[in-house]
Amino acid sequence: MPRIVMKFGGTSMAGIERIRSVAQRVQREAHAGNQVLVVVSAMAGETDRLVQLCREAAPLHDPTEYDVVVASGEQVTAGLLAMTLQAMGLVARSFMGWQLVRASGIHGNARVEAVEAAMLDEALTAGTVAVIPGFQGVSTDGRLATLGRGGSDTSAVAIAAGVKADRCDIYTDVDGVYTTDPRIVPRARKLDQVTFEEMLELAGVGAKVLQVRSVGLAMRENLPLRVLSAFEDLPGTDIVAELSGDGMERNLIAGIAADRNEARITLTGVSDKPGTVAQVIKPLADAGIAFDMIVHAATPNTGSSDLTFTVPRASLAQAMAVIEKLSKEIGYTGLLHDDAVAKVSIVGVGIRSNPQLAAKMFEVLAERQINLLAVSTSEIKVSALIAEPELELAVRVLHTAFGLDAANLNEGRAA
Amino acid sequence: MPRIVMKFGGTSMAGIERIRSVAQRVQREAHAGNQVLVVVSAMAGETDRLVQLCREAAPLHDPTEYDVVVASGEQVTAGLLAMTLQAMGLVARSFMGWQLVRASGIHGNARVEAVEAAMLDEALTAGTVAVIPGFQGVSTDGRLATLGRGGSDTSAVAIAAGVKADRCDIYTDVDGVYTTDPRIVPRARKLDQVTFEEMLELAGVGAKVLQVRSVGLAMRENLPLRVLSAFEDLPGTDIVAELSGDGMERNLIAGIAADRNEARITLTGVSDKPGTVAQVIKPLADAGIAFDMIVHAATPNTGSSDLTFTVPRASLAQAMAVIEKLSKEIGYTGLLHDDAVAKVSIVGVGIRSNPQLAAKMFEVLAERQINLLAVSTSEIKVSALIAEPELELAVRVLHTAFGLDAANLNEGRAA
Repeated sequence: MPRIVMKFGGTSMAGIERIRSVAQRVQREAHAGNQVLVVVSAMAGETDRLVQLCREAAPLHDPTEYDVVVASGEQVTAGLLAMTLQAMGLVARSFMGWQLVRASGIHGNARVEAVEAAMLDEALTAGTVAVIPGFQGVSTDGRLATLGRGGSDTSAVAIAAGVKADRCDIYTDVDGVYTTDPRIVPRARKLDQVTFEEMLELAGVGAKVLQVRSVGLAMRENLPLRVLSAFEDLPGTDIVAELSGDGMERNLIAGIAADRNEARITLTGVSDKPGTVAQVIKPLADAGIAFDMIVHAATPNTGSSDLTFTVPRASLAQAMAVIEKLSKEIGYTGLLHDDAVAKVSIVGVGIRSNPQLAAKMFEVLAERQINLLAVSTSEIKVSALIAEPELELAVRVLHTAFGLDAANLNEGRAA
Repeated sequence: MPRIVMKFGGTSMAGIERIRSVAQRVQREAHAGNQVLVVVSAMAGETDRLVQLCREAAPLHDPTEYDVVVASGEQVTAGLLAMTLQAMGLVARSFMGWQLVRASGIHGNARVEAVEAAMLDEALTAGTVAVIPGFQGVSTDGRLATLGRGGSDTSAVAIAAGVKADRCDIYTDVDGVYTTDPRIVPRARKLDQVTFEEMLELAGVGAKVLQVRSVGLAMRENLPLRVLSAFEDLPGTDIVAELSGDGMERNLIAGIAADRNEARITLTGVSDKPGTVAQVIKPLADAGIAFDMIVHAATPNTGSSDLTFTVPRASLAQAMAVIEKLSKEIGYTGLLHDDAVAKVSIVGVGIRSNPQLAAKMFEVLAERQINLLAVSTSEIKVSALIAEPELELAVRVLHTAFGLDAANLNEGRAA
């Protein structure tokens, strides 16, 4: 008998009427002959309310006590969904995170280590629908631990892997994964299939459909995911290890990602010798500052060069301080920064084997006079750093050039 | 080092400002050299909100899932108080009910069976303030269990007994136990001391300061309780096994209790032979209906008699149905009922040894032409069933006659 995990987000749990409609979806899957395990978020707004209470109680609060407070939201919806399913005639019960999800690491941002599958196995095999609060587990010290905001996706995937589910369906308030942000490109098209790697790149640079960690975990566990609407009966997007069937005929490029969370720092006149990049980047890494694109361009025959890199916009001030403090050791003539930059990326498994795709991207941007401040490439992604005011234009022209536009607006929403 | 349990009700936990003021009281006790354990209720209104959600989800809901939902309220306040105490520089942490309170019995109305004292001992001895959500524990099947409305008082007493606390202080929105309901008698006086038995009688018949079960438990464990205001610095009332010191000079009567939750049933013309009372009362008990006063008055030399008894007003219809169904077996000529009755009681350890007190009560009521429909006595209580419209008058005249009136209104509130 197929075993599936269904995960519902906060919007679909916001109030008894919506919980009832979630229960109907669960009933449908159970009546279709599936063993069903449901992972739920807190009611929309509830986690924010609880976080706000913690902030008012103590601005710098103990993350362990924070976990105690915020974990309560999913506990409530899990109990409510279980009793709603029972009222519909299904055999259902809730399990608490502390009863079966072992977590480790930092409180407030813990990681799932193991799932007590035996208890769930028994219930599922007996035909019981199991309802589990997402976002939480029990830490090695026996206390409540939460997984970080959006952690219910990761809970769902970890639990699905733990009970060897056939797939994990993520019900959300969007109906799938799109070729790009539909707010920028109204003709963005819903993808039928996307690979884990593509999804990671699309999610990592702005498509906030799924928590990135949950996608990475599903990839490692080779667990098929499906993103679909909690409100409409639409097919959704399959997230899989390899494109199959119709998916093979999909466009080589899955989508265009846009990311405004970038700032650029340039050191001019640094020494053009081995070790310069490390000398700058290591202290940033030590300070916990992520960095992304790095360009080290030498001025020929001068022994001098410029070093440009990007950091998250929120870390810009801290990164500048770190570098200024080390100005003597590094030795540079100028220190520039710019937070009006953005990153546009083409993402797709096709990039691996088609260098022409990157070339085409540069050509399309050049035609529109969009200047490339930096470029980085990976197996499935080519990213260009550009001036932020040009971001939306860049996304639109690339979306059209790579054949991603829906034939018409209706198709765009429904495909 | 003295070890105390402080319990705070929902009104004192309603919002961060009030939680901060609770934290200040806790800090004062800790700085005074006490080991402190705090038991908290949910924010005022929160449990009602959660109960309402359960009712909307499923009118006849599974009590196990109900427990999952409603237990969340105290979890939130426990976490918030712990982080507030930490912000004030105290070492504090929360423990969850499922980590240390073992409960048994019916979900939604479970009983505390045992407290894992070792974990708490360790924390308290190390100087940590322990914060525990009231009203909940873990059942024998490993699931969340709640103790019934008002159960936080019982949690507090059970935990205090478990960790061998020197006393348990119940902070509430009244500042102590009064000689009677101050809404009926404005000159009601706060008692400095009251015995467990007196408190049980006062609480059982309407003085809703403390959950009755918590008083019974404290009596069995011989654990001194104190009821005091969460909002004002006033001495409160000590609830003790035996009156001591000044308390010995207290009035023989502790207070006057008023109870409107009464209804009377009379069977006329029943057989005046042994077994008649049992024949009527047993089916009521089997149906789970509590009964209170019973008067079986024979008409001399007729072999016939009237049987009168009282039941909770909410059970009147059900009780009438039970008796009508058994009319042939019982054999009576008339079946009467009256729900406009009430019970007034004098309560005090002095009653045991002073039959004059009961006589005085009847005399005082007779002077005001208040008719006694039934009377019952116990070691520390004399109750009279009277017509409900006469209840407030009865309470007032008895309060004055037994010397309980405060000398003036101010003293009444502050004494």
